[in-house]
Amino acid sequence: MEPGDSNSAAGGKTQSASAPPVEGVAGGGTSYGWVDGGLRGTSLGAGVIDHTKVHSEDLLHVWSMPSTANVSQQEAPRPLEKVNLLAARNERESFQIALRPKVSWSTSGIAGSVQIQCTDLCSSSGDRLVVDQSITLRRVVPILGVPDALVPIDPLSPQISLYPGETAAVWVSLNVPCGQPPGLYEGEIFITAVKTELDSSRTESLPKSERYRLYRELRSCLDITEPRDYSSPEEMVQRLTSASTTLRRMLDNPALQDCQESNGFGDMMDEDVMNNVSVRLKLSLTVWDFTLPVTPSLPAVFGISETVIEDRFCLEHGTEGWYDALDHHFRWLLQFRISPFFCRWGDSMRILAYTCPWPADHPKANEYYSDPRLAAYAVPYAPILSCTDAAKNSLRREVEILKSKPHWSKAYFYLWDEPLNVEQYDMICNISNELRSYSPDVRILTTYYCGPSGSELAPSTFEAFVKVPNVLRPHTQIFCTSEWVLGTREDLVKDIVAELRPDLGEEWWTYVCMGPSDPQPNWHLGMRGTQHRAVMWRVWKEGGTGFLYWGTNCYEKAMIPSAEICFRRGLPPGDGVLFYPGEVFSSSHEPVASTRLERILSGMQVMILLIMSPRLRNIHIKSSQSALMSRRVFVILLGISQRYLGAC
Amino acid sequence: MEPGDSNSAAGGKTQSASAPPVEGVAGGGTSYGWVDGGLRGTSLGAGVIDHTKVHSEDLLHVWSMPSTANVSQQEAPRPLEKVNLLAARNERESFQIALRPKVSWSTSGIAGSVQIQCTDLCSSSGDRLVVDQSITLRRVVPILGVPDALVPIDPLSPQISLYPGETAAVWVSLNVPCGQPPGLYEGEIFITAVKTELDSSRTESLPKSERYRLYRELRSCLDITEPRDYSSPEEMVQRLTSASTTLRRMLDNPALQDCQESNGFGDMMDEDVMNNVSVRLKLSLTVWDFTLPVTPSLPAVFGISETVIEDRFCLEHGTEGWYDALDHHFRWLLQFRISPFFCRWGDSMRILAYTCPWPADHPKANEYYSDPRLAAYAVPYAPILSCTDAAKNSLRREVEILKSKPHWSKAYFYLWDEPLNVEQYDMICNISNELRSYSPDVRILTTYYCGPSGSELAPSTFEAFVKVPNVLRPHTQIFCTSEWVLGTREDLVKDIVAELRPDLGEEWWTYVCMGPSDPQPNWHLGMRGTQHRAVMWRVWKEGGTGFLYWGTNCYEKAMIPSAEICFRRGLPPGDGVLFYPGEVFSSSHEPVASTRLERILSGMQVMILLIMSPRLRNIHIKSSQSALMSRRVFVILLGISQRYLGAC
Repeated sequence: MEPGDSNSAAGGKTQSASAPPVEGVAGGGTSYGWVDGGLRGTSLGAGVIDHTKVHSEDLLHVWSMPSTANVSQQEAPRPLEKVNLLAARNERESFQIALRPKVSWSTSGIAGSVQIQCTDLCSSSGDRLVVDQSITLRRVVPILGVPDALVPIDPLSPQISLYPGETAAVWVSLNVPCGQPPGLYEGEIFITAVKTELDSSRTESLPKSERYRLYRELRSCLDITEPRDYSSPEEMVQRLTSASTTLRRMLDNPALQDCQESNGFGDMMDEDVMNNVSVRLKLSLTVWDFTLPVTPSLPAVFGISETVIEDRFCLEHGTEGWYDALDHHFRWLLQFRISPFFCRWGDSMRILAYTCPWPADHPKANEYYSDPRLAAYAVPYAPILSCTDAAKNSLRREVEILKSKPHWSKAYFYLWDEPLNVEQYDMICNISNELRSYSPDVRILTTYYCGPSGSELAPSTFEAFVKVPNVLRPHTQIFCTSEWVLGTREDLVKDIVAELRPDLGEEWWTYVCMGPSDPQPNWHLGMRGTQHRAVMWRVWKEGGTGFLYWGTNCYEKAMIPSAEICFRRGLPPGDGVLFYPGEVFSSSHEPVASTRLERILSGMQVMILLIMSPRLRNIHIKSSQSALMSRRVFVILLGISQRYLGAC
Repeated sequence: MEPGDSNSAAGGKTQSASAPPVEGVAGGGTSYGWVDGGLRGTSLGAGVIDHTKVHSEDLLHVWSMPSTANVSQQEAPRPLEKVNLLAARNERESFQIALRPKVSWSTSGIAGSVQIQCTDLCSSSGDRLVVDQSITLRRVVPILGVPDALVPIDPLSPQISLYPGETAAVWVSLNVPCGQPPGLYEGEIFITAVKTELDSSRTESLPKSERYRLYRELRSCLDITEPRDYSSPEEMVQRLTSASTTLRRMLDNPALQDCQESNGFGDMMDEDVMNNVSVRLKLSLTVWDFTLPVTPSLPAVFGISETVIEDRFCLEHGTEGWYDALDHHFRWLLQFRISPFFCRWGDSMRILAYTCPWPADHPKANEYYSDPRLAAYAVPYAPILSCTDAAKNSLRREVEILKSKPHWSKAYFYLWDEPLNVEQYDMICNISNELRSYSPDVRILTTYYCGPSGSELAPSTFEAFVKVPNVLRPHTQIFCTSEWVLGTREDLVKDIVAELRPDLGEEWWTYVCMGPSDPQPNWHLGMRGTQHRAVMWRVWKEGGTGFLYWGTNCYEKAMIPSAEICFRRGLPPGDGVLFYPGEVFSSSHEPVASTRLERILSGMQVMILLIMSPRLRNIHIKSSQSALMSRRVFVILLGISQRYLGAC
């Protein structure tokens, strides 16, 4: 025991300052205090943390991550660096802000809340990208433990909660308008530790017990002032004095104290506070003098399950609410540069696919089909479900109206999903004969991943698959094959293409669904972000002229809008689900995009740029190297843009 | 198109009712609507859900899980069944309630909140286990994604938040008091979907704007009643009338309406509501007519890092706050039937270990050492850090005081953690000679996992390890070996035991730290709950007479109480960390237990029962079969208790 420390049996601190204390166990003991993390430490002290006096960088880690990163709850902090983005006009570019608490500053069971405020992005010539219009913030919510759902953050109260030991992510998207002047735009995002709404509601607003007290005091004050027959002026003075005393006590209520000073609009932080305590993420966006075309260079058609919408939103087919819901979904999906079609499955994988729920003679039909953002549309072959004369007549009228329109070149029929045998092939041929009698230039799309069983088309499975056009000609114009068939043999593309007759208007499209699986590109939950992006790059690399995806909302059945989202059994997680019902996450009816849908858009944008620069076709994009590729492609893209900048 | 549906180009519903609609893709397509989940569906409708009118079982899944389960966020729902527990008096038994939203009923970014209210458990003879005293609720919070921290739920507002697609868990502990009459106790836990506090604060309590209005009205009312020279009685009547009008208007504020009817204690739900809409989990506890002894049958000594407490809580060694913090930790850990010791590491793994921070002549020392819950205590060998004469004299005084007390039989000295070479062995022997000169019956504990290097003790590593008692005799009485040494050769225990001399008072204790690893029992994060429990069972099975664990609070260094908990590099997650600072999770200063610490208690309780029934020793407990074992052991335990019930 040290002298002068006689109250302690435990001895004093005797370690020398140079050798850090070592604590742990041998056979793999560990040092203590080496990973100090650089907390400003003593400035925070041991008491309750007052977040208004402490710089937010002492309270949380903030760093940026690319939109291809799956930022998990265990993601480790990185240094905060400036974010530099490049985008064409009419392009969306996204990145993520990762946040992780260093300490807890809330008292209500979470680590704390942060407010995220973005300035407009300004160019030196005074042009602006306006926050909320061109810049949006969404929080990344895990689905089956994988960061996926992008739930909008209320611009009026842009706060998110952080939990002890968990990394959270915010998805920031910049949408560059078509008319945006090119140049370098700069701005900042302020991330500020704040009281949680719950902390606030406990201290700033009136808790229940306080309301009861207030109520009782108001009542007793009213008892004093209530008109009656007064015995004397003295009694009235007495009553007025007594009422004043009660009122003054009520005004002294701690919950009303801030009402004296503040203006009542104190929810947004003032600039001084932000400058003093916020973490500032600097952001620059270079807008190229080049506009991505409104119409995608290549049609990507995506299914929306009509049945799921009817069930989940409790809508009866053909009612006003049903039309509204379909319309809402159609418009919302157009922003992702995809061409939606609604669908309903019949028996044996026959399918009713249609882009517009209204008949061709309805004004909405023209609005839908003429939309320049729509690259292709499915015409409903109604007899597929109910082969009545009325259905057939109505179909004939539809085709007759549509074939006279300029948008007819975008039309296709999608009749059957992956026909498997000769009987199903025959049905497609019969329908084709009917349709071609209405208009000889109809385009029929057929998806397939194998040849028809029960026919001796070719000796091997792959050859039977490759020979399908010989069987379906002229009853199919869009031969849409599964990427799964190629496996690791990407060179087999040439065999597929060799069988097609472009001179007859035949096209090769592709699709992904259950397969291919990792490490190939697909949209399954848990794949890397570059795999999600690379699906559309692969289309460009292989030279296909279109793409199909079977489902964007194919959750398991539910009859309540806010019901938990369950993926369907037998499918890889995320397969057939690219967005979620907003009702699951808040009171909003707006669908909630997945990170995968945003990466589809990102891949589409890159693909469009690649298509516009045919010289790049010979670059070898190997999907399994997609992480590496992403960097390489962006270097190339920067090259494209600079050529454009030079050319314009 | 169907007749009578002329507004729709999409066709009607034509599937027959018998064949469910099939939707998906072939080559692995999936059925739609087969996994219907049994939501009551149409009763909820498509609008905003009013949780007060809907039965909570339509809103969430509730089911129970054993305390050995790691209930992850992805845990799938199971049927709700009655919980039946068995416990001795002075025993704690725990289980978990798992909760998963079926739908979202909140509008504030979460799926919804639930209130969890437990009734007292009552026996048919009117005895009670009182909620909050004997029954506690804690929410299970993930650490590194593994459910581990048990954060107390405020009994005054027993609510937790549920998130879309995530399973949450509540840890329910029943503490049976020593004097509890035996019998069958029954009760219920009501789980009720409620508005979130955030929803409530928006609607029920006063929002900011309302508070400003109230403030202005109170001020203007005070302006009216404020005493002054009144010109006439009429003016006073006028003023009183006018004040009354203002007060009535304030009382009409919608935010105060519920104050009229309610009694001001409206946070708890009334019984009618609970009976109508709550999910009810029935709970029964059989209390055996047998009391677990207050003093553990076997000492389990656990380290608390003094250094970590000093750093994290910014406490200077020897100050009043420092003593308070150590005292708080000591008392809190006693509930887990372990015997704490504080520790500080010196160089070369020399260690200062002490159970009581006060010297032996301080009244607190007697209080600590005499506590019947303490099975063993470490006496500080202060010269280990500072080898001054003062330290040596003080040590001699300590031993002289202690050796005269009845609790001296619990005393031990822990001088060195895992000595590795002859030099370190020599130091232990020197200290031992000094200590034995003060009192010949001192007990010295030495931990080791190998023999000393630089000595030719034996030809093989294991033999050198087994021969350590030959080197340390008589300088060590408690030979504390690592379970890691045994590997899968549990039969080697007999070789260790064969070298010891019980006739000289020698004991065999064991410890776990980094090893053994999965599938052996240890307390690492992510191991199965039965592995956590089985550590103490293994002690019983192997016949050791004590157990040591190096650290309960050995986080990475931090200088702020609420700083994020980081595990130390180089250690398996959770190693050396059995509880967390309360400040990380709320404003509470109470430490937060891990599920692992609760499973240690559970394992200790079982071990105590097993020790009391020596006939069971020959049951083969294979740690890798611990899941199976848990059931078998509990059947055995039930047997013990029934024998006891018969005997008493």
